Amino acid sequence: MSVERAFEGQRVPPWREQLTARALVVSFFLSVMFSVIVMKLNLTTGIIPSLNVAAGLLGFFFVKLWTKALEQTGLLRTPFTRQENTVIQTCVVAAYGLAFSGGFGSYLFGMSSKIAAKTTEEDTSQNIKEPSLGWMIAFMFVVSFIGLFSVVPLRKIMIIDYKLIYPSGTATAYLINGFHTLNGEKLAKKQVWMLGKCFIGSFFWGFFQWFYTAADGCGFASFPTLGLKAYENRFYFDFSATYVGVGMICPYLVNISVLLGGILSWGIMWPLINNQKGHWYPADTPQSSLHGLNGYRVFIGIAIILGDGLYNFVKVLHRTIATFVAAARQGPSTLPVTDDDSPSPAIVSYDDEKRTQVFLKDQIPQWVAYGGYVSVAIISIITLPHIFPPLKWYFILVAYIFAPVLAFCNAYGCGLTDWSLASTYGKLAIFVIGAWAGAAHGGVLAGLAACGVMMNIVSTASDLMQDFKTGYLTLASPRSMFVSQIIGTAMGCVIAPSVFWLFFKAFKDIGEEGSQYPAPYATIYRNMAILGVDGFGSLPKHCLTLCFIFFAVAIMINLIKDLVSPKIARFIPIPMAMAIPFYIGSYFAIDMFVGSVILFIWEKINKPKADSFGPAVASGLICGDGIWTLPQAVLALAQVKPPICMKFLSRKMNDQVDTFISSLS
Amino acid sequence: MSVERAFEGQRVPPWREQLTARALVVSFFLSVMFSVIVMKLNLTTGIIPSLNVAAGLLGFFFVKLWTKALEQTGLLRTPFTRQENTVIQTCVVAAYGLAFSGGFGSYLFGMSSKIAAKTTEEDTSQNIKEPSLGWMIAFMFVVSFIGLFSVVPLRKIMIIDYKLIYPSGTATAYLINGFHTLNGEKLAKKQVWMLGKCFIGSFFWGFFQWFYTAADGCGFASFPTLGLKAYENRFYFDFSATYVGVGMICPYLVNISVLLGGILSWGIMWPLINNQKGHWYPADTPQSSLHGLNGYRVFIGIAIILGDGLYNFVKVLHRTIATFVAAARQGPSTLPVTDDDSPSPAIVSYDDEKRTQVFLKDQIPQWVAYGGYVSVAIISIITLPHIFPPLKWYFILVAYIFAPVLAFCNAYGCGLTDWSLASTYGKLAIFVIGAWAGAAHGGVLAGLAACGVMMNIVSTASDLMQDFKTGYLTLASPRSMFVSQIIGTAMGCVIAPSVFWLFFKAFKDIGEEGSQYPAPYATIYRNMAILGVDGFGSLPKHCLTLCFIFFAVAIMINLIKDLVSPKIARFIPIPMAMAIPFYIGSYFAIDMFVGSVILFIWEKINKPKADSFGPAVASGLICGDGIWTLPQAVLALAQVKPPICMKFLSRKMNDQVDTFISSLS
Repeated sequence: MSVERAFEGQRVPPWREQLTARALVVSFFLSVMFSVIVMKLNLTTGIIPSLNVAAGLLGFFFVKLWTKALEQTGLLRTPFTRQENTVIQTCVVAAYGLAFSGGFGSYLFGMSSKIAAKTTEEDTSQNIKEPSLGWMIAFMFVVSFIGLFSVVPLRKIMIIDYKLIYPSGTATAYLINGFHTLNGEKLAKKQVWMLGKCFIGSFFWGFFQWFYTAADGCGFASFPTLGLKAYENRFYFDFSATYVGVGMICPYLVNISVLLGGILSWGIMWPLINNQKGHWYPADTPQSSLHGLNGYRVFIGIAIILGDGLYNFVKVLHRTIATFVAAARQGPSTLPVTDDDSPSPAIVSYDDEKRTQVFLKDQIPQWVAYGGYVSVAIISIITLPHIFPPLKWYFILVAYIFAPVLAFCNAYGCGLTDWSLASTYGKLAIFVIGAWAGAAHGGVLAGLAACGVMMNIVSTASDLMQDFKTGYLTLASPRSMFVSQIIGTAMGCVIAPSVFWLFFKAFKDIGEEGSQYPAPYATIYRNMAILGVDGFGSLPKHCLTLCFIFFAVAIMINLIKDLVSPKIARFIPIPMAMAIPFYIGSYFAIDMFVGSVILFIWEKINKPKADSFGPAVASGLICGDGIWTLPQAVLALAQVKPPICMKFLSRKMNDQVDTFISSLS
Repeated sequence: MSVERAFEGQRVPPWREQLTARALVVSFFLSVMFSVIVMKLNLTTGIIPSLNVAAGLLGFFFVKLWTKALEQTGLLRTPFTRQENTVIQTCVVAAYGLAFSGGFGSYLFGMSSKIAAKTTEEDTSQNIKEPSLGWMIAFMFVVSFIGLFSVVPLRKIMIIDYKLIYPSGTATAYLINGFHTLNGEKLAKKQVWMLGKCFIGSFFWGFFQWFYTAADGCGFASFPTLGLKAYENRFYFDFSATYVGVGMICPYLVNISVLLGGILSWGIMWPLINNQKGHWYPADTPQSSLHGLNGYRVFIGIAIILGDGLYNFVKVLHRTIATFVAAARQGPSTLPVTDDDSPSPAIVSYDDEKRTQVFLKDQIPQWVAYGGYVSVAIISIITLPHIFPPLKWYFILVAYIFAPVLAFCNAYGCGLTDWSLASTYGKLAIFVIGAWAGAAHGGVLAGLAACGVMMNIVSTASDLMQDFKTGYLTLASPRSMFVSQIIGTAMGCVIAPSVFWLFFKAFKDIGEEGSQYPAPYATIYRNMAILGVDGFGSLPKHCLTLCFIFFAVAIMINLIKDLVSPKIARFIPIPMAMAIPFYIGSYFAIDMFVGSVILFIWEKINKPKADSFGPAVASGLICGDGIWTLPQAVLALAQVKPPICMKFLSRKMNDQVDTFISSLS
């Protein structure tokens, strides 16, 4: 079946027509919305599911609404095309991607005094940079565009020559192509309706919950659903529509892994280590100190994340090099064989021919790419040391020399596996630059800043290449996509820091353990930087041993996963996912598990319906709850406090409280 | 379309075969289940929806399960027939009917010292009879069978001669006939599945709620869903699956009426009267005293109930007499014209012929009926004064002389309108016998006991006539039905008091205002008896005036409802329904309203599905939550208390409590 034949009658508009004003307006609103959602996820657990489907659906919905309305009034000039839809998709992805890669839940927030106070080591002023809207926007502008330029020259190689699959980008393209056929439009409308219902439900559920959260430990988010004992060990269902939705989007294996990690850590290990209080670590260390139980939580988590990251880095690198070596040996005509189902290059299908033709028509001149890269790099080298004094100009220069290679690696790996290793490259930068700068010269801050530089470029490279794949499959012009990406990135550079600033100002207990926004990765990243600079001296007893064990186990599990048959491998948990609840607890794991169970039952009852509407329901739940955060933040800024506290007390405590209350009146 | 032609091939089993052992076993379990549910409803609000559909569905389900299982093993001897199904239905209705007409939520519980202490007037020992299992079972046996005998001679007149419709009985028969056709069986299975899902969901929801109710004012039942201010005035959604289900079964008009009544009373009138504290009544009267605000609540409610009851009594009586007068004038061959769609008697259809033939085959000898009535009456006259000393033998004799006439009136009225006026006749007995006995001779207790005698006979008469109609339409033998009713009544005489005893022992705060089981009608009935005996002396200022106004308004509204066209009448609220929240508050009205809204939306989205499955969902919700009461009562008896209190505090109070809690540790 040829997709393009179905669209044969439709004219492909020239690239300027694909970039409509309405597309940019819709993109802007969606970017704000998704930035808020991603920021919320950043600051709660750091687990960010793919929101592409939601962006695609909503983008389609809003422009369709717009064009329908104009059609009614007879003012419609340009019809809504799939190319325009792709432009919106690209712009939104570029913009909200920065909410993640800007590190507001990780390296950037890790620089603040709030997180520094928690980690206690290296909390001198030279290692602290307080968040402030001005420098954050400047920083974003300086580091975010370079990734864009680095990608352009690789575009043709990755998409046309290597025919990499880019699973997410391909899926998005199928979605968009589907929307613009007649049947697809009908289904899309139903999906939008479903998304809308879940959105509204989830929004009002968030709103309703708000009334009962007068203070910490109040409301549904503190509901001891599995009993008070389990609640103390952070096992409870916290009624978060967001994470139920996340659980419905993430693969079952991820959800099970997260839950297993939670049970292993908070159910088994931490209680056992807690019994060693006074032996392994002083009994009088405060709850939040990294010299006590918290140290085990943070560093064992880091060990697993690093082990898993290292394994995947080596694996992807090895695979990339192997493919090149093979290609070089057999001559340029043989393309690297990828494990996808795309037709063999020998038989060029009508679709491929047509797509390649469009894709190669509107070229972006090479000098724009190279010139852009060099000039942004120069600006960056000059500006960044002013923002972060410990980050010397030569650190940045070195970073930018290696960056294109790493960006290529990541874009290539992502094309093969859909797995962006951006944060792994960032962690690499933390250790290398941090150690290079040294403890005496603000190595922690330098490391975190370098992480930002590296992560942005590498992450942008893979994200945008996904978009180009989508554009290739929907006949969108590369030039309109490039412009859309530039606009999206510029939007993101303003939106993302602003949204973070809103959260930072509105929620006073942000970054604090046990609060609504614990920002776990901010603590983890800062501790990685400290580890890189100071070495292992600061860890409590046996912690290093445990870290090595878990580091090794993470690598082992990955190795086993790759060696056994895929049938068995799909039952082996993912170490990276298991590490997330180590620090923050299992409550979101239970939410996600509930999401899994709902989807599982739905699939059992009606598989086609679950497949069509599952992602829409999940997106609705995530978006509704996420958007509620916006009015909630506004209320918090306006000092409007919820009126009621829904409190959970043990029976004994309740009797005492009742006596106390009756003594008041 | 002839129903009986569809069943033509099937043999109608003789009456002994219709009474199988399995039917009686299933009946017993269903009777226990529905008695628990009705008792719970009795003791919470006194609103009891029709559970006939649930009984029909579950009876079908269990026997079908049984026969399927036996079929598998090859042991099945008699197939499951619709006659057997009717026998189960009849037996269950006879048994659980006693849970209502036994007055455990009204006159019988109103005799206890608990309720007497609340009403304060006439709380001397001669007006108090503490509940105790022994005398309650004896009382039930003595008063419950007489209704059965009074109905038998009327059977042929009502069903064959007058062709009264008995809407509930007819509906049940259609349900049962439907189940036993092939298509109907398929639908019934789906309905059972839906009922089962809702049952399980509702049961576990009740179970889950339990954990958070460590003390009074804890848990979902005290959730200030609409804010704390509204909660103080008893406006909140209390997450009761039962009343959401009740709301789905009751007509919209009832639900709206209840809600309007709640808004009128707790939203407007009580706050206004409360402002007159110190003027209209002394400011220092305790909350529960009838000389304060509570007096207005109770007596205005009674005024409306009496006004509505009186109007309907007169109306039905007038209609009955008018029909008879008309019939007498035009000779015996002309049957009273009822406003149903049944075929005119002139053209006797195949269905009618066949049904009449079966209905007249197995006669119950007249001497059994008359002999039974007289002998039970004699036993009753001898025994009852021993149980209730103020109830003299001649009061009972008079009651039993008038009772058959009233039973006839009620059975006839019910056949026309589906509206059983049993409680109105009971109230009549309270006033007549109470006033006759007089204050000095325990008139309150005598009145309440007489109410029991009268209500039982009158209620049984209408219930069983409904059953006979069902039997007529399903070709069940009247003899097997009569035996089934005797067995059901005997079961009910033991089950109903036992279930009440369980509640009474398990829930210590039963009958207390604001508790889980306020038993509003117990208070109302006792107050009616006091009113009958003492007159209006005890009412607070202006209360009598208000009572007269509301009494008149209740009659007026009914009159208007009957005078205007039905199109407008269906928007005029029902005074009786409006009176219920006057005393206990609007929380259940909001539950019922939620049920209405759910059904309304469901009907808008998919009307056929809502019509087929709405009653099943509602029944499932009611039954699941109701059955959870059983383990809850067992837990309470075993002194197992819930571990957690979910408490709701205002922000200010929460701050104080938090300070208090942190001062403890």
